[in-house]
Amino acid sequence: MEINSYPSVLLEKAVNEFASLPGIGKKTALRLVLHLLRQDKDTVKRFGNAFIELRNEIKHCKNCHNISDADVCSICSDSFRDATTVCVVENIKDIMAIEGTHQYNGQYHVLGGIISPMDGIGPGDLTITSLEEKVASGAVKEIILALSTTMEGDTTNFFIYRKLSKHNITISTIARGVSIGDELEYTDEVTLGRSIKNRTVFTGSF
Amino acid sequence: MEINSYPSVLLEKAVNEFASLPGIGKKTALRLVLHLLRQDKDTVKRFGNAFIELRNEIKHCKNCHNISDADVCSICSDSFRDATTVCVVENIKDIMAIEGTHQYNGQYHVLGGIISPMDGIGPGDLTITSLEEKVASGAVKEIILALSTTMEGDTTNFFIYRKLSKHNITISTIARGVSIGDELEYTDEVTLGRSIKNRTVFTGSF
Repeated sequence: MEINSYPSVLLEKAVNEFASLPGIGKKTALRLVLHLLRQDKDTVKRFGNAFIELRNEIKHCKNCHNISDADVCSICSDSFRDATTVCVVENIKDIMAIEGTHQYNGQYHVLGGIISPMDGIGPGDLTITSLEEKVASGAVKEIILALSTTMEGDTTNFFIYRKLSKHNITISTIARGVSIGDELEYTDEVTLGRSIKNRTVFTGSF
Repeated sequence: MEINSYPSVLLEKAVNEFASLPGIGKKTALRLVLHLLRQDKDTVKRFGNAFIELRNEIKHCKNCHNISDADVCSICSDSFRDATTVCVVENIKDIMAIEGTHQYNGQYHVLGGIISPMDGIGPGDLTITSLEEKVASGAVKEIILALSTTMEGDTTNFFIYRKLSKHNITISTIARGVSIGDELEYTDEVTLGRSIKNRTVFTGSF
């Protein structure tokens, strides 16, 4: 179906707004807009205002740069969490992924990306200075680098390591190895090589 | 990635609004919301308001029930179009599809669905009475039934035919046959059978 003749300017505007989102084409946008048209006015008002309110009222946590409703996010203000351990991540999706594992009880630091000269992102575009200040204040015992296992991630890991290694803290990275459920035969050789080099002592259970 | 711990209530609300749309899951919704968060406030305001304005201000054409910015839609108010030919379609997407072919210069009539007892849609839920009135007024010479080629579509075709056949008009349906580009070998036998039965006289070109 070719879409080139909208029966209404308002409809066309709404479709174009949806289609401006990444991964949403004109056909999907039209389907979504027609769905909204079938909802009552209050539902559509709530829909549209949710994004406007979010954009106008969202804050970034002063401590970890996570997005937050308050000046300090719910993780940083949680006194049951270990404030001496800081996990460095690229973005808030990574925080949500790690929180989803229920395996981590420390705080986070959101870099806002990774060093990627190809995309024009240098260390100055990230929150590395703020991380250094946090470490320099003496409040941190361990930094866990949880960045992408790509060349850009490794570059960023090394850059942060160079910046922070003069401080008396532990700097660790998340373990790299064979994914749970993977067969060795199909694991790439870099991952497999690392998993042998960084083998862990087996004590009967994982 | 399990998503169960949003760092912000506003974020969670916005994600849930997106995820309420058909075919949009929580992960896609989060990706879209984070994209919007990176846009400036005016862009997001325009985005949200496009849907609210559409829902509040959209009208339905008095003549054909197409959605429209005015009381009469741009197709019905176009004096260059043939008002004596009316193409009956299920919804506005079908109008856009037919308009996209640039092969039709008549008017439309939007039924708002097709008769489907399984979905609880009866003739009373459709704009068939309004179509009858239009025909009874004597302004229409031909009705083209352009409904889905399904059992529900056929039922609706027959129902409309029964209602309108007492009037002195031509009632036609869109041609059914082998799609352009299809190989006969892979065409289902009902379609192929019909395409032989309803063969058209070949005059050297299509």
